[in-house]
Amino acid sequence: MKELMIALQSGKTPLYEQIYLAIKRDIEDGKISFGEKLPSTRLLAANLNVSRFTVDLAYEQLVSEGYIQARAGSGFFVCDLSNLISGISDGEKHFDPQPRLEGEQTDVRIDFSPFAIDTAHFPYNSWKKRNREVMDEAADLLMSREAAGDRGLRETIATYLYRARGVHCTPDQILVGAGNEYLLMLLVQVLGGGLSVVMEDPTYMQAYEVFRHIGCKVRVGMMDEEGLLCCELDKCPADVVYVMPSHQFPMGMVMPLGRRQELLEWAAGAEGRYIIEDDHDSEFRYVGKPIPSLQSRDQKDCVIYFGTFSKSISPGLRMSYMVLPRHLSERFHRQFDFYASTVPTGQQLAVRRFLETGDFERHLNRMRRVYKAKHDFLLRELKKRSWVRRIRGENAGLHLVVAVDTAQTESELVAEALERGVRVYGMSSYRIGERTAKEPVTLLLGFGGLSEEELSEGLAVLDELLSGGNRNG
Amino acid sequence: MKELMIALQSGKTPLYEQIYLAIKRDIEDGKISFGEKLPSTRLLAANLNVSRFTVDLAYEQLVSEGYIQARAGSGFFVCDLSNLISGISDGEKHFDPQPRLEGEQTDVRIDFSPFAIDTAHFPYNSWKKRNREVMDEAADLLMSREAAGDRGLRETIATYLYRARGVHCTPDQILVGAGNEYLLMLLVQVLGGGLSVVMEDPTYMQAYEVFRHIGCKVRVGMMDEEGLLCCELDKCPADVVYVMPSHQFPMGMVMPLGRRQELLEWAAGAEGRYIIEDDHDSEFRYVGKPIPSLQSRDQKDCVIYFGTFSKSISPGLRMSYMVLPRHLSERFHRQFDFYASTVPTGQQLAVRRFLETGDFERHLNRMRRVYKAKHDFLLRELKKRSWVRRIRGENAGLHLVVAVDTAQTESELVAEALERGVRVYGMSSYRIGERTAKEPVTLLLGFGGLSEEELSEGLAVLDELLSGGNRNG
Repeated sequence: MKELMIALQSGKTPLYEQIYLAIKRDIEDGKISFGEKLPSTRLLAANLNVSRFTVDLAYEQLVSEGYIQARAGSGFFVCDLSNLISGISDGEKHFDPQPRLEGEQTDVRIDFSPFAIDTAHFPYNSWKKRNREVMDEAADLLMSREAAGDRGLRETIATYLYRARGVHCTPDQILVGAGNEYLLMLLVQVLGGGLSVVMEDPTYMQAYEVFRHIGCKVRVGMMDEEGLLCCELDKCPADVVYVMPSHQFPMGMVMPLGRRQELLEWAAGAEGRYIIEDDHDSEFRYVGKPIPSLQSRDQKDCVIYFGTFSKSISPGLRMSYMVLPRHLSERFHRQFDFYASTVPTGQQLAVRRFLETGDFERHLNRMRRVYKAKHDFLLRELKKRSWVRRIRGENAGLHLVVAVDTAQTESELVAEALERGVRVYGMSSYRIGERTAKEPVTLLLGFGGLSEEELSEGLAVLDELLSGGNRNG
Repeated sequence: MKELMIALQSGKTPLYEQIYLAIKRDIEDGKISFGEKLPSTRLLAANLNVSRFTVDLAYEQLVSEGYIQARAGSGFFVCDLSNLISGISDGEKHFDPQPRLEGEQTDVRIDFSPFAIDTAHFPYNSWKKRNREVMDEAADLLMSREAAGDRGLRETIATYLYRARGVHCTPDQILVGAGNEYLLMLLVQVLGGGLSVVMEDPTYMQAYEVFRHIGCKVRVGMMDEEGLLCCELDKCPADVVYVMPSHQFPMGMVMPLGRRQELLEWAAGAEGRYIIEDDHDSEFRYVGKPIPSLQSRDQKDCVIYFGTFSKSISPGLRMSYMVLPRHLSERFHRQFDFYASTVPTGQQLAVRRFLETGDFERHLNRMRRVYKAKHDFLLRELKKRSWVRRIRGENAGLHLVVAVDTAQTESELVAEALERGVRVYGMSSYRIGERTAKEPVTLLLGFGGLSEEELSEGLAVLDELLSGGNRNG
């Protein structure tokens, strides 16, 4: 086993990233070579005087980028990089920025991604039909749409949102864009930049990364089992609170009514406070009535509502929308009209027809049944497992949150499953802060993209790792 | 004529915006009512002790938003707003953020937009065919692509760019995104934000607005008839220079070789200096050989190349790409991989096929002939006009720059043409700084979207305004 020389520095770069970079550099420079074993996370953590979770994170990153691999029960080993580092004409060696892709596509048989959708039941025929109809509109298709998106599409979305989510808005308040991340970039500009944002933790990490990279300060809000402790918000100054009240990602809890009220009161308590309500998967609720949006209870024009077609139609569509309070939409149209819409006109018109014809509602009704069957199947199967300690986030969405009984670390478990062609997602990947030592190893198991057979096959691999396997890491 | 009470304040808000806002508020509040005449720009400028151009800009903004209209030879009058301000349920009146749209679509017969393309010669059949083929790929279409875009598409773009523009790059260096503005937002994040940017003036104002709104400092570079004075760059600190060396927008000049060299030397002169080369319309050059890209001469990895399909295919497609130097593309893939691609998978695959099958090259060859014919026609017609003082920007692109002989101000001319259903574009709209008083009234006349008949009809209206009309404003 290799001894690693890593000099950690206090500063802006997180510790786990420093460790990741140091090991990566050593591997690239050939200081650690193919097949060599890395120190155990426990040992390295002790040597560097950091928490084991920090080392876990670094190793997980190296595994996911294809630098090292976990072998069940025996530790982490350096991969053969010869096919990753491609010779460049001038003789220099450069790091291929996408080593993951090749490996992933051939190796992963079962992917429990919480973002995958069912492609077998997609209404290809009606979708193609709407697209063909749009293609016949010829010249109109070639012109770009106004900054906020096609007006007809926005009218259709406004009607849908009112009926399905109780969202009150005019089409002028809706902004259609190429995904939530882009819309967040726009929103921060409309709000004037340099914001102080409170987020739940764990959360939707893409939003966190966007805020961080465009100069916002992100603070983690206090949480308990029911979600964000809204009554604590007043203790620190903040401009924006980013929440998922209908179905928190990834934990799956629903924000109780009392907290919703507290949250709205916090926002109303001072000028310039806003709540971003990310309503990412509210289309899929399997038990009880849909939970009305927070926006529907907003009397003070302080909720900014985000919705997406990524789960309800497809992630490949790249289409989301936000609903701005009136004064913000006026500001947008006054100052940001110069932006061209980021969604191709053809796609906007096709989605508009898909909604207007009722294809969308029919598709949603069907998918609710399809996903409910998968959800119930996975839940039933998980309940049979002795290694399952606790299941959360049920009754909605496209994944379950499963705390497991194991002596392994989360990253070891994720890496070993990947070795066997099964991709599972550790809760730590969705955390802004470090995991507390008390928290059990927790996996996100997405079921949207998998059939019952594939779910069973994936669970069988987890059975191997968690029931019979090496319990001492 | 109304007397206006406007209190100007020195501060962050530009003077023209203060004037615009004050008049707008008075109109909305009913203090100035429908049909009333505003003071002449000359008088108001004298009263407020500001330049006449400042008032021009304010009036132009009010005209473009539908608050006031110009009547030929007699001045500016307040429009009937009753159809613009819509009653809101709670009894309050809110300003409809998009008053422009309704009016525009019915009134403008001839639009000399420099961004319009020819839709009559678009290869609808092959475009539809490629889209239909892609639709048959079913499930693959539903999945989103990696942050940088579909790999196959990037390979195809790399091949095209090398052949057509001499751009040296691997597919890993290419980033496909939903338009230049989005890609600029990403780029500024990759470069670390808070940049000091030098731009040409006049320039592509969307890029200017993006930089401004995401916290960059923009400085105007010294210009002469040949474009940016690159030898002056060293005099002030800057991180990025944004240029259009092959065909400056909107002026149309080509950056001479010597200046290109100076620019590259400036960038090589210090760590962290970059040149953004916006190669927006290089596909369309009608005389002589294409001018090789600046990127093709870059030995030090400091040029970031921007290209777009907005003119070569269509603005409705919303697809652009940037080519990053290797170290920046590595940084992107390391730190920004969490971003999902902003372009729908279907559109990426359709464009890839459009390029791979040769449809794209055939289309470009045809459009080059179509646009050359329009360009030659407009140039010939303009040369017959006595009111044309000077024509610039010829031999390439989709518009001409025409300095005209008139006693009217630019905004009066633009407004009066609009009154007659002809939209022309004043050079001031593309200026960061104020126009110098010496500069003649200058119009951008885009010809891409107009037939010869429409060009003639538009010119006839300008003849009316400029030859026979009131020469004293």
